[in-house]
Amino acid sequence: MKNETLSAEQPVLSSETLLSHWQEHRRLTRKVILAFPEDKLFTYSIGGMRTFAQLAMEMIGMCMPGVYGLATGKWAVPNRPEVNFNMAPPATRAELLKLWDETTEAINNVWPQITAERFLETDKAFGMYEGTISWHHFYFIDNEIHHRGQGYVYLRSLGIEPPAFWDRF
Amino acid sequence: MKNETLSAEQPVLSSETLLSHWQEHRRLTRKVILAFPEDKLFTYSIGGMRTFAQLAMEMIGMCMPGVYGLATGKWAVPNRPEVNFNMAPPATRAELLKLWDETTEAINNVWPQITAERFLETDKAFGMYEGTISWHHFYFIDNEIHHRGQGYVYLRSLGIEPPAFWDRF
Repeated sequence: MKNETLSAEQPVLSSETLLSHWQEHRRLTRKVILAFPEDKLFTYSIGGMRTFAQLAMEMIGMCMPGVYGLATGKWAVPNRPEVNFNMAPPATRAELLKLWDETTEAINNVWPQITAERFLETDKAFGMYEGTISWHHFYFIDNEIHHRGQGYVYLRSLGIEPPAFWDRF
Repeated sequence: MKNETLSAEQPVLSSETLLSHWQEHRRLTRKVILAFPEDKLFTYSIGGMRTFAQLAMEMIGMCMPGVYGLATGKWAVPNRPEVNFNMAPPATRAELLKLWDETTEAINNVWPQITAERFLETDKAFGMYEGTISWHHFYFIDNEIHHRGQGYVYLRSLGIEPPAFWDRF
C-alpha cells in the first residue's frame, strides 16, 4: 500500500479481516451461551424480553441463511428452509450449540464466495431490508453484540460473572 | 472495481463506510441517552452494573481520545487531559450530551487524517492494548453496542420502549 493520504472511498479493510471480526464475536457469544445455567438459558429474562436461548436462535436464524444471502442474494440455507428467523429454540443447550457450530462452519465455507464488488452492492436482506452487503454484514455482527450485551445483564442479575468482552479467542 | 473473485487480503471497505458505520451507532446511542428519565440515567442499574450515564462516559472517554490515537498514535485529546476513561459523569443530561456531541465532532474532524496504511498498523491503544488500528476501531464501536444493549435492558425493566435497533438516522 502506498504511503499517501487516504481518499475516503479507497477500500482499507479486507474480506479476511471482516470474517475474522465476525468469528471473534461469535466465539465470545458461544462462551456466553455456556456461562448460563442450562435452565436459565431457556427460561430467564428481564422486563418481558426474550430468553438468551431465543436471542441466540435469532442470531442463528439470521446468520446461517444470511451468509448465503450476502454471497448469492438468496437469503436461505440450501435444503434447510427450517433455519430461519422464526425457528424455536431446541430443548437443550447441546442442540443449540450444534446449530451454533453449524452456523460457524457455514459462515467459514460461504464467506470466500463474496466478491469484492458484492460488498458494495445493494440488496434486500431476506427480501425486506434494503442496504449494501457490507451494511447487512455489520447488522448481523452488531445485532449479536447488542443481544449478547443483554445476556450480560441477565448473567449479572443472576450473580454470574460473564466472560470478558475482549475474550474472543 | 474489477469483476473478479475476491482475494482475502484485498481491501473491500472504505474509510468513509467505517466512519459512517461509527456515527450511525453514535446517533442511536444518543437516542438511548434521551430515552431515559433524567434521574434514572444517573442512578438506575441492574445486578451491580454501572448506570447508563457511566457507560456513556466510558464511550466518550474512550472515543474522543481514541480517534486521535487511531490517527496519530497519541491516545489523548490535545489540551483536554480530563477527557479519559476515568472521567466521572457530569451532573446533568445536557452536560453529558454536550460532551457526546463534542466527541461526534472530534471524530468527524480527526477521522480523515487516518491514512490507508494506518488502518493496518499495530499500535498499543492507550498504551495498553495491542492490536491493529482497524481492530481498535471496531472495539470502540462494539463496546458501545455492547453497553447500549445493556441500556436497552435497563429501559425495558423500567417499562420504557427503547428506540429501534435499526433507527440510526
